[in-house]
Amino acid sequence: MVLLALYLVAITAEAMTAALAAGRRDMDWIGVCIIACVTALGGGSVRDVLLGHYPLTWVQHPEYLWITAGAAMLTALIAPVMRRLRSLFLLLDALGLVVFTVIGCQIGLEMQLPITVVLISGMITGCAGGVLRDVLCNDIPLLFRKELYASVSVVTGVLFIGAQALALHSDISMLVAMTIGLAMRMLALRYNWQMPKFVYRDEWR
Amino acid sequence: MVLLALYLVAITAEAMTAALAAGRRDMDWIGVCIIACVTALGGGSVRDVLLGHYPLTWVQHPEYLWITAGAAMLTALIAPVMRRLRSLFLLLDALGLVVFTVIGCQIGLEMQLPITVVLISGMITGCAGGVLRDVLCNDIPLLFRKELYASVSVVTGVLFIGAQALALHSDISMLVAMTIGLAMRMLALRYNWQMPKFVYRDEWR
Amino acid sequence: MVLLALYLVAITAEAMTAALAAGRRDMDWIGVCIIACVTALGGGSVRDVLLGHYPLTWVQHPEYLWITAGAAMLTALIAPVMRRLRSLFLLLDALGLVVFTVIGCQIGLEMQLPITVVLISGMITGCAGGVLRDVLCNDIPLLFRKELYASVSVVTGVLFIGAQALALHSDISMLVAMTIGLAMRMLALRYNWQMPKFVYRDEWR
Repeated sequence: MVLLALYLVAITAEAMTAALAAGRRDMDWIGVCIIACVTALGGGSVRDVLLGHYPLTWVQHPEYLWITAGAAMLTALIAPVMRRLRSLFLLLDALGLVVFTVIGCQIGLEMQLPITVVLISGMITGCAGGVLRDVLCNDIPLLFRKELYASVSVVTGVLFIGAQALALHSDISMLVAMTIGLAMRMLALRYNWQMPKFVYRDEWR
Repeated sequence: MVLLALYLVAITAEAMTAALAAGRRDMDWIGVCIIACVTALGGGSVRDVLLGHYPLTWVQHPEYLWITAGAAMLTALIAPVMRRLRSLFLLLDALGLVVFTVIGCQIGLEMQLPITVVLISGMITGCAGGVLRDVLCNDIPLLFRKELYASVSVVTGVLFIGAQALALHSDISMLVAMTIGLAMRMLALRYNWQMPKFVYRDEWR
Repeated sequence: MVLLALYLVAITAEAMTAALAAGRRDMDWIGVCIIACVTALGGGSVRDVLLGHYPLTWVQHPEYLWITAGAAMLTALIAPVMRRLRSLFLLLDALGLVVFTVIGCQIGLEMQLPITVVLISGMITGCAGGVLRDVLCNDIPLLFRKELYASVSVVTGVLFIGAQALALHSDISMLVAMTIGLAMRMLALRYNWQMPKFVYRDEWR
């Protein structure tokens, strides 16, 4: 199935970018593997825990843990080459975002949750892994500050849910939502699109 | 029901103070909404996940997500006016703390948990949202450092559980616990009451 | 049962080191107690939530919360003496790590999870409490940066699972795994063994 293949590409890409983030913090090899697993599989885990959707993906498919940890180790080994692959990485990372979002929405629809919660399920799957990575690396989550990341997830989710509501075939809904989401993310990166920021300065509280 | 009205006031107030915290970190609009939802609904979510109390509140009532996100957007729009409303905010925030605490204790009692766990259930509901907000904004949680916040939650919980144990009517128990808790918090803010601190300096470990 | 006694020693030791970490951040008394409970009981809680293994330990045995909070308060009272007990502490902390790991693996085996997940269950039980402590104290988790900590947990888990697979008696498996894990940790501390680090510098993304 195409979605499974895309999912595997997505967790691999997430694991690789997470390994680079861990390397920036001088983590040791085990730290690198843990950060990679948390980033790649954490979004789905947070979703499943919040929705009570047991067992978690990696409990059923422990091979995903090995794929993720393996990708992270490989990244640490060939890190000097990584710089040249920047564009490929950004593309794979964006692909991961839209694939995770669609999978999260699908699970929400299967559980027959309210439509808002389906959308949130997609967002959490797409974005929470990166937030966990940033919290563990002691950064302010990028998600909240840079470029259209969460917004791409929202748009992808809305398109997918909308297409499903119009009774389009599931594969077509997916394709449409993921293509537009991916294009939006790549354009945002290319032209440095940003959401307006809310800047507030005041020291009381 | 009065408690539901108080709950809605409480999540709105929490969302507004969370939006200001996000603004201090220059987050974009989506970041502001996410931080607001996590702060206002995160305490109850942590409680429900730890107690296995499914489905979570916002899964059953997705309208709470909209209320919270809406309150956060409104806050970002009218931020300059907010400064003047400082006292009102602190009052609403304190109200949120005691309302959340009582709701958390009630759920613990309904689940017939041991009395210590009922108290913890109230504390988590009252305090964990703010801790999540501070972790996501990359601060040391205020909870652990400033004023009587967790302590107010403990006192409110003990009073509520005690009044229930004395077989007082549920509404009266609530009223007593919330009034005393609220008074304690406002006095703590007014006179800058603090818990004694444990200060330790030593670089081994 | 010996394992229960070891568990009680372990949560006490974890609570005491957590209290010292909280003291380094000038937390108040309630903050100290909360950090202690999260550190000592957090690893098991994260494991139980991820595996859907309800009710959580401290919900069933609220007395553990009192032991942990009590140990933390005591530590804050007698902190000046603590410096002299450094070696004892490091030993107890290492004991906690291997005891938690073995308990986590046992629960994974009882739930008949895949072998990789059993190992992860042990690691989470052993390490996640310390990660939560560091996140709440706004540090980069030590786990990912210093000495053989997660590695000791992995080795202990592998030995325990391996011994069980060889149909050794459960007590003997435990003894072997815990002794070797403990020795490895103490040697790592004594000779400052470290895992190789992955250091990466590059400001894109």
